[in-house]
Amino acid sequence: MTQKPLYIDNLQYTNISPAHFDEMAVAGLSAVHVTICYHENFRQTVENMITWNRWVEAHPDRLMLGRTGDDVRQAHATGKTAIFYGFQNCAPIEDDIGLIEIVHQLGARFMQLSYNNQSLLATGCYEDEDPGITRFGKQAIAEMNRVGLVIDMSHSAHRSTLEAIDISSRPISITHANPSWWHPARRNKPDEVIAALTKAGGMLGFSVYPHHLAGGSDCTLDSFCEMIAEAAERYGARHLGIGTDLCQDQPDSVVEWMRNGRWSRSTDFGEGSADNPGFPRQPDWFSSIRDFPNMVTGLQKVGFSQDEIAGIMGENWLRFYDQNFGPVGPS
Amino acid sequence: MTQKPLYIDNLQYTNISPAHFDEMAVAGLSAVHVTICYHENFRQTVENMITWNRWVEAHPDRLMLGRTGDDVRQAHATGKTAIFYGFQNCAPIEDDIGLIEIVHQLGARFMQLSYNNQSLLATGCYEDEDPGITRFGKQAIAEMNRVGLVIDMSHSAHRSTLEAIDISSRPISITHANPSWWHPARRNKPDEVIAALTKAGGMLGFSVYPHHLAGGSDCTLDSFCEMIAEAAERYGARHLGIGTDLCQDQPDSVVEWMRNGRWSRSTDFGEGSADNPGFPRQPDWFSSIRDFPNMVTGLQKVGFSQDEIAGIMGENWLRFYDQNFGPVGPS
Repeated sequence: MTQKPLYIDNLQYTNISPAHFDEMAVAGLSAVHVTICYHENFRQTVENMITWNRWVEAHPDRLMLGRTGDDVRQAHATGKTAIFYGFQNCAPIEDDIGLIEIVHQLGARFMQLSYNNQSLLATGCYEDEDPGITRFGKQAIAEMNRVGLVIDMSHSAHRSTLEAIDISSRPISITHANPSWWHPARRNKPDEVIAALTKAGGMLGFSVYPHHLAGGSDCTLDSFCEMIAEAAERYGARHLGIGTDLCQDQPDSVVEWMRNGRWSRSTDFGEGSADNPGFPRQPDWFSSIRDFPNMVTGLQKVGFSQDEIAGIMGENWLRFYDQNFGPVGPS
Repeated sequence: MTQKPLYIDNLQYTNISPAHFDEMAVAGLSAVHVTICYHENFRQTVENMITWNRWVEAHPDRLMLGRTGDDVRQAHATGKTAIFYGFQNCAPIEDDIGLIEIVHQLGARFMQLSYNNQSLLATGCYEDEDPGITRFGKQAIAEMNRVGLVIDMSHSAHRSTLEAIDISSRPISITHANPSWWHPARRNKPDEVIAALTKAGGMLGFSVYPHHLAGGSDCTLDSFCEMIAEAAERYGARHLGIGTDLCQDQPDSVVEWMRNGRWSRSTDFGEGSADNPGFPRQPDWFSSIRDFPNMVTGLQKVGFSQDEIAGIMGENWLRFYDQNFGPVGPS
């Protein structure tokens, strides 16, 4: 065990800039799972990967590409941040099961089976009906299991999520959402879903996106950490981590793209509204990447042990990475 | 009214060759709705259009591009066949509602909202569950209505079909299927669906694909035409036409592509089976394009009037083309 704590933020979609890489260093983040796509198809997703590859290449003092748990350890030892790629939708694999192995070879480690709408694989949380995992979805899950591309159901509807947990032979993830017993947002998850997820070895990453927080932008760190304490009691602290969903410095055009993609001719406001269409204000205790360590104080205050805090802040995701980012090993 | 009857086959997917164009002339087909795609994306569909455009350009004595009902009349007057493009899936519009107008501008006149699987718009008849039309699907229907791209639900599941009929402000189609009260195949349609379709002004095209026929490859022309007579009693003869689903001269690799696309790593046999994986043998009274007029004899035998036969063999589709292949007119 190293002296310096190992932190992982398992979901960010910040507007990439070198200043952010400095903030990652200040925060002591050894790994960040960055969103590479929402609605982009395969070719466009590859373009986004090229962009990120070049940022990493240009900043070798700050960044490295992350592919395995050991990459996180190396980043931690050298004071860098390992960047892991993930998709918030299955758009990059289009209708081609063969692209699952390809995107894994290109570095993708998480893929949501849907964003807010029905996808070819599963149902998003904004649809009226949720028929569960489709025929293609069942095959895609098996293929993701085979290559070690982790299933993420953050934006999916509940039945689809329960079925994915059941169908998948490996643990899955909800990288960025909170329990709906704390804040009943459409994007948050009911007890039944989180219980099934964690019972099967899956991980829940707590989100700091204001629409997912009790009290919204005014949510306190105390309230957030009390929720985590309750979740630890219900599901076990070792299945919990952080996935902030931070969209630092993104213009409001980006949240419009997330919500509307290319599928809508009218404007869908998602978790916002016509009166409040843009990104919400972050809570003051988590206004930027550099605030990540603030959560430690809050977690201490609600009575977590040092080991539990180390787990929630990064070690739990690291263990999950070790076990799920490649083919199932012989041992 | 011209002397020579006007015939339309509203669904073919034959392996294009000049010999087929000769057969269309022998059969007296003034229009054929040809399938341009099953699983092809936008760019690949455009490529298929280029291929067809070039066939039409190279055979001006036999073919012309079909865009409107008047094109059928012109083809009829000049002894040619007007070729209309259609999609058996919504794959060509990918996730982009803007592509609906684009494919219409490129000549597409029919688009299925799904093939056999769940699509971004609707559910295919091979899924276990049918949640109906998706969020994107509702918007796509409105846009198809606006530009005059006809909704085809031949391969869709029943709830999705009923919802599409209800949501669409214009009549829709089932271009190639038969009633399940005659032959209860998965691809055939229950009375409730055909009744709703035709009540809303929609058209049903009868299929001669053996898996859709009572008796399969051994189905008789009498049995087929008795079924049409029963359908005319139930739904009215003016809503009935022909969509043979003829796949003349296609190798079995094509039916494998139809069924499996790129989504499956195991082999899906669709309406076939492991013992019978290929294209089924056509019934002897409809073994090739040139047999199209044979149906007239069968329709006469079951008691249809000359006008009713003219309607079923082509005039009903022509009226439907006139009303549905462009924006809703001012009159």
